[in-house]
Amino acid sequence: MTAAIIGIGLIGGSLALSLREKGIAGTIIGVDNDSANIKKALDLRLIDRAASLEEAVQASGLIVLAIPVDAILKVLPRVLDLVSTQVVMDLGSTKSKILQAVANHPKRGRLVAAHPMAGTEYSGPEAAIKDLFKGKTMVFCDARKSDEDAFEMAEALVESLEMRRVFMNASEHDLHTAYVSHISHITSFALALTVLEKEKEEGHIFELASGGFESTVRLAKSSPDMWVPVFRQNRENVLDVLEEHIHQLKNMQKLLENEDYEAFYKLIQRSNKIRKILK
Amino acid sequence: MTAAIIGIGLIGGSLALSLREKGIAGTIIGVDNDSANIKKALDLRLIDRAASLEEAVQASGLIVLAIPVDAILKVLPRVLDLVSTQVVMDLGSTKSKILQAVANHPKRGRLVAAHPMAGTEYSGPEAAIKDLFKGKTMVFCDARKSDEDAFEMAEALVESLEMRRVFMNASEHDLHTAYVSHISHITSFALALTVLEKEKEEGHIFELASGGFESTVRLAKSSPDMWVPVFRQNRENVLDVLEEHIHQLKNMQKLLENEDYEAFYKLIQRSNKIRKILK
Repeated sequence: MTAAIIGIGLIGGSLALSLREKGIAGTIIGVDNDSANIKKALDLRLIDRAASLEEAVQASGLIVLAIPVDAILKVLPRVLDLVSTQVVMDLGSTKSKILQAVANHPKRGRLVAAHPMAGTEYSGPEAAIKDLFKGKTMVFCDARKSDEDAFEMAEALVESLEMRRVFMNASEHDLHTAYVSHISHITSFALALTVLEKEKEEGHIFELASGGFESTVRLAKSSPDMWVPVFRQNRENVLDVLEEHIHQLKNMQKLLENEDYEAFYKLIQRSNKIRKILK
Repeated sequence: MTAAIIGIGLIGGSLALSLREKGIAGTIIGVDNDSANIKKALDLRLIDRAASLEEAVQASGLIVLAIPVDAILKVLPRVLDLVSTQVVMDLGSTKSKILQAVANHPKRGRLVAAHPMAGTEYSGPEAAIKDLFKGKTMVFCDARKSDEDAFEMAEALVESLEMRRVFMNASEHDLHTAYVSHISHITSFALALTVLEKEKEEGHIFELASGGFESTVRLAKSSPDMWVPVFRQNRENVLDVLEEHIHQLKNMQKLLENEDYEAFYKLIQRSNKIRKILK
């Protein structure tokens, strides 16, 4: 099979590596607005050749969109305009707005909406990693709206990637990811800003940074090109979670101001329940 | 040399492993209020034998305090009361209050105040790891107040642990650790509470948790027995940083409410400067 990957960055590039390794795609065509990305993707042998969107869709049995979610909103309807029997997958981190945008498209059935819960804080073709998806979760959204053959092909692909499969509707997906992914990025960005701000006055503050600090701020390396569109499309859920998170921080602040260490202790004990969830 | 380690948990236990491996201590005596900890430390061969505080100080050339910082406030003056020419090290995560408490002690010179910027979110003897300290930073605080021979012995020990050495006064130390360690813990605790709170209503939220989430909340597994005393002793610095962190989050909240995505983009770009600092 020939596969077209639209957006050859961390996700698209890593998928290309897996599609090739698993023998799913014999030829991989890359589509990317950024010619530097195309050059790197060719150099790294992530793709066999580059093509225009139209040409790539024509030539491929599978078309995967791995571009920022604002770009998916624009490009996905164009891709569906072009397909006949091909399968289209979008890997966007938000789903409601994207699926609304193509809800009445005559080719909606060719689309399988999926979100791999996998990534790193890096971006671009050079960030692509073998086995990025292995053992991770793929969320299929509104799977019943996909044609049976299209969904079966996507599911078989996800199975060969050795991913766990979870099914949700688009609004559940957007709510849950606000909690377990989007808010983590917001707090990391804010924490980085807090410390960078202070460093101007104090200097040398980072001499003491260790693993704990690194762990909580590493997501602050993430690209605004990917994340601003995510926050924009999932604005209401993100605002809800952010409100709750600020409330929790203010509660801790109040207890510390009042020197109520007993209540503070109980709060930490309650937060320790996260042990049951994380491995 | 015989070394006494007061508090055989993650830090004390890991130090015991290194002291033995490097041949620095032939015999290691453990002191711990918790008899279950002593039993585990003996089973794991972290220590050779257990003893009372008095007996351990008598028998040892080096006495290391690796207990929560509120316990250090109580135990350190008692240890200094007991020493003659031995060297005492405290490994507490705060320094101002502890060093104030012994500032006028006649044996103050025997104390070397140090803080290893190393740890994990786990605690207890079973959390002890070989090489926990290797390549990490040891902060020496108010080093000039230590007797020359005591400091030299501590420095040689830290050198054999293959640690980087940094020198600060106690108040600088407490300010800097509030930024690069204590606030990371506060945000992790708050993030865990935010998500655990929501999970009650929604369930299944954690099916989607991936590496990014895990990274930002893993510190929320940390023990309140260690952390509440840290926040208590470093309360003013922690409150300052927390204020700034809440301010940054509220700013992001306001931009998202106003849909000012251009300013939001610039904020993320600014936070990306953390790339220069983290490896």
